[in-house]
Amino acid sequence: MNHLEVWAPYADTVAARIKDRTHPLKASTGGWWHLSEPVAANEDYAFIINDGKPLPDPRSAQLPYGVHGPSRQVDHSAFTWHDGGWRAPPLSSAIIYELHVGTFSKEGTFDGVIRHLDYLCDLGITHVELMPVNTFSGNRGWGYDGVGLYAPQETYGGPDGLKRLVDTCHGKGLSVILDVVYNHLGPEGNYLNHFGPYFTDHYSSPWGEAVNLDGSGSFEVRRFFVENALMWLRDYHIDGLRIDAVHTLVDMSAIHFLEELAEAVKRLEAETGRHLVVIAESDLNNPRVVTPVAAGGYGMDAQWSDDFHHALHALLTGEKAGYYSDFGKIEDLARALTRVFVYDGRYSSYRHRNHGRPVEGLPGTCFLGYIQTHDQVGNRAKGDRISQLVQPEKLKIGAAIVLFSPFVPMLFQGEEWGAATPFCYFSGHEDKDLGEAVRKGRLGEFAGFGWDPAEIPDPQALETYTQSILDWDERENEPHRSLLDWYRRLIALRKKSIDLKDGRMNRITVTHDENNQWLVISRGTLLLACNLNDKKQMIPIPAKKQATSVLLSTNNVEIVKDAVILPPFTAAIMLMRQSEESNDH
Amino acid sequence: MNHLEVWAPYADTVAARIKDRTHPLKASTGGWWHLSEPVAANEDYAFIINDGKPLPDPRSAQLPYGVHGPSRQVDHSAFTWHDGGWRAPPLSSAIIYELHVGTFSKEGTFDGVIRHLDYLCDLGITHVELMPVNTFSGNRGWGYDGVGLYAPQETYGGPDGLKRLVDTCHGKGLSVILDVVYNHLGPEGNYLNHFGPYFTDHYSSPWGEAVNLDGSGSFEVRRFFVENALMWLRDYHIDGLRIDAVHTLVDMSAIHFLEELAEAVKRLEAETGRHLVVIAESDLNNPRVVTPVAAGGYGMDAQWSDDFHHALHALLTGEKAGYYSDFGKIEDLARALTRVFVYDGRYSSYRHRNHGRPVEGLPGTCFLGYIQTHDQVGNRAKGDRISQLVQPEKLKIGAAIVLFSPFVPMLFQGEEWGAATPFCYFSGHEDKDLGEAVRKGRLGEFAGFGWDPAEIPDPQALETYTQSILDWDERENEPHRSLLDWYRRLIALRKKSIDLKDGRMNRITVTHDENNQWLVISRGTLLLACNLNDKKQMIPIPAKKQATSVLLSTNNVEIVKDAVILPPFTAAIMLMRQSEESNDH
Repeated sequence: MNHLEVWAPYADTVAARIKDRTHPLKASTGGWWHLSEPVAANEDYAFIINDGKPLPDPRSAQLPYGVHGPSRQVDHSAFTWHDGGWRAPPLSSAIIYELHVGTFSKEGTFDGVIRHLDYLCDLGITHVELMPVNTFSGNRGWGYDGVGLYAPQETYGGPDGLKRLVDTCHGKGLSVILDVVYNHLGPEGNYLNHFGPYFTDHYSSPWGEAVNLDGSGSFEVRRFFVENALMWLRDYHIDGLRIDAVHTLVDMSAIHFLEELAEAVKRLEAETGRHLVVIAESDLNNPRVVTPVAAGGYGMDAQWSDDFHHALHALLTGEKAGYYSDFGKIEDLARALTRVFVYDGRYSSYRHRNHGRPVEGLPGTCFLGYIQTHDQVGNRAKGDRISQLVQPEKLKIGAAIVLFSPFVPMLFQGEEWGAATPFCYFSGHEDKDLGEAVRKGRLGEFAGFGWDPAEIPDPQALETYTQSILDWDERENEPHRSLLDWYRRLIALRKKSIDLKDGRMNRITVTHDENNQWLVISRGTLLLACNLNDKKQMIPIPAKKQATSVLLSTNNVEIVKDAVILPPFTAAIMLMRQSEESNDH
Repeated sequence: MNHLEVWAPYADTVAARIKDRTHPLKASTGGWWHLSEPVAANEDYAFIINDGKPLPDPRSAQLPYGVHGPSRQVDHSAFTWHDGGWRAPPLSSAIIYELHVGTFSKEGTFDGVIRHLDYLCDLGITHVELMPVNTFSGNRGWGYDGVGLYAPQETYGGPDGLKRLVDTCHGKGLSVILDVVYNHLGPEGNYLNHFGPYFTDHYSSPWGEAVNLDGSGSFEVRRFFVENALMWLRDYHIDGLRIDAVHTLVDMSAIHFLEELAEAVKRLEAETGRHLVVIAESDLNNPRVVTPVAAGGYGMDAQWSDDFHHALHALLTGEKAGYYSDFGKIEDLARALTRVFVYDGRYSSYRHRNHGRPVEGLPGTCFLGYIQTHDQVGNRAKGDRISQLVQPEKLKIGAAIVLFSPFVPMLFQGEEWGAATPFCYFSGHEDKDLGEAVRKGRLGEFAGFGWDPAEIPDPQALETYTQSILDWDERENEPHRSLLDWYRRLIALRKKSIDLKDGRMNRITVTHDENNQWLVISRGTLLLACNLNDKKQMIPIPAKKQATSVLLSTNNVEIVKDAVILPPFTAAIMLMRQSEESNDH
């Protein structure tokens, strides 16, 4: 039993429609309206602004009938949690696994995810990162076009389903990070404009109206998003948030929205004693995003780091199109590994401008490192994974570099066995015209790059979705099985090595040879040598070090004095000691 | 003799039109085009892009025929400077005087300003701040609609006139600050879009297309503005810049445009050994603007601080319209004096949002304090100064508060004698349709606030301009004369008092009484007591202090034990010592 309330500062009247009756709300201060009679938690209701049509509550806790239907409140006290003693481990020791609830399991639900949690534990994962689960139009989609920001998608299992998933994760020692989208709302079922100034025309966003973070009324708009973040952490026991595309949050306020969000999460952390994190997806190459608030930053705990991805992807695939045109050399990868941003103020040919600024004094664990994500796979014309683009031996080198990097490693579902299933861009908009526009937009986008439209999966087609569902059986077969084994061993090594969890950037050194295509990464007592050449090579060990034994390798390697001999396309992790010459002082 | 060059990255061809001949430019790297033959400094030239019509050079050094005509180069070495030993004093000891070249003197020229420099010296001014002098359309205007950013307005006296003014200022010990506008270009004569991506539709600006500071090609756009700033400082010996409306510079880059600008100016400072400053006009209430780059700020030396103005104006006038609705209490003024921003994160009713953040660890001398500026006067319907709104005794109190404040004081031309001339909004656009649109826009703006359009001066009318020209003779008469004398004495006191130049905010204390309308400001050994009430009052001196003598006052005041007795509407500055009670330990 809760009292309904809604912010509608420009409304003349607001009413709640419950069953067949209309209950007028009372105007309160600050543009808020209240219904004095309590409404039962299982009761459907909708709001009517100025005698218009019934609309879902902007803060619907549940949308049992989808984005257009009425809202339902949720009694969060009704769920029995079993995670009383749960404490999330720090990000610095995390192995993150990004997954999409709709395609991770055959069921495409929260319960479907639960079925595979033991597998993730066995793989060595510590944090599950869920792509957005708030309500979006239709019964399939990536989730970035969500509109019911407070309501878990009903077709995934709704509020209780999400709670069961988080509770079970915690029971198995897994933390849960949730992807949330605060930079725009989806094109279907977005009724926020009927309620208040949630959007602004001062700025533009690539995906819809820009959110109003600094204009008139932005106080409540920011609160709408901040309270959403707190709700997931508090009511769903989520351990951290991934904030989508912060580079499209235009906010000229003296206190940036991200800072306000970070501070609110830190307050909740202090109140609860839980360990909570906020991770930004940022294309800004701006260390301010992850700089503490006290040092003038926005206070995010970490951010995605695409430069490392792009450098690694371009090196392994040789691709040169689009943003990969700025990358491709081993030197780029070496820069990413030692300085985080390859573009740290330098001119980017792809962007036709200078980009980024140097990272100074921040640990590598403020950045996530990955060889693929939903975006880098799904935004390709056919949703092909890197395992479709490069041979298995190179994939293994890539995996070794990710898991040996100073960054927090993140895998994308199925990456660890080189899943043969694609991860396509798919949607299930109910609005026919919108569906057609999305289809045409997608085909047109790639037709511009010379693709035959017939080759591009239709985003609205059901089979584009179904073919993106993981095939769990294939991982028993080669070459999937041996790749999976390699990931398992890399993860196990990372988890037990203090050197690999030490994010201090001044502890990592990289040597490389562009012509001969090799790369050596040193981290404390460990060394990763990679031969990206198609011929066997002797690769020098950095001065004053001496390899003593091979811990992991994709091939037989031979340790010689001051060097290691690697077969073509081979990665090897070795234990090091100071060489004798350096000990004689 | 110089070589022409221009950035036109999308052009197929670029040619220079010189006399009746067309000379093709050669494409170079990065979208630049060069003419190999040198062009004489006194030669007119225009650029032709893709066989279009002749256009002025975006970097015209001189526009002898106005915004639409051809460009001319300037041989800066031809001018003989006499300011070899010149060193500008630091901002912390500055008394700034904002003036508009077109209305400061009868002549409305740089030479006209020169005629009055001795007066400014005598008044005690240290820094002259010129409203924008770059080329704008027509022969009169405020200058914020400039389009020839590199060329001093010809009707003011062109490049040589500006140099004469700066040289003479330096000879008389006056520094020169120049107002520059980088957030938009004026509506008439703006041909930049023909040359390159100077503007963006990702953001909007209140006054024209938003400048492209972070999109494709922004590298050169930022350079265009940064090199403009350096040109004024280098070629015109300007001592500092005032950057117009930085709150409308939307820049998501990791290195903010202002930071890039500040760093470039600091480099020039280091190279030349001169003292150069950059001052921002900022409505953001964000201390980041004036925080050093090393501490995560944008590195501006100072910024305008409207909160202090608004608090003082609203208190003295009792006005409650528009942004003054957020102010009006003595407490607001006390907050401004002790914390700089009255809105430091609090909710602003006028803005319908939270505004600002606290200033921490920055001296008051990072902020300019003023009772009026061109904006606060000229943006009123009839351009009326505060001297038209309040009685002379209150004006004197206002002046005392400005010159006793921890901020760098700034006067607006004629303020010091309570000029009876207004400072109206005026323009002289040559384009008839534009002129009509500006006229209608202005009248419509105020009609919306209940003004009779017949009462609003027509911005395009010549007389709106001429009536805004200062009447220098009136200052000999009362009440102008005694106000001028008061300013002179306040300025003299400020200049000789170490306490008043000490910008440390923890050295200022303010006590006040809202009901009885008095305010006491303590700074070191000095104390300013203000009685804003229409009755005589005994005003307590802060504990442990004892007034010993009156240094300046607008009326006869009486010092008694622990207090001072002030007649109605009186300000008095007193010398203090620690009282006996506090000495007995």
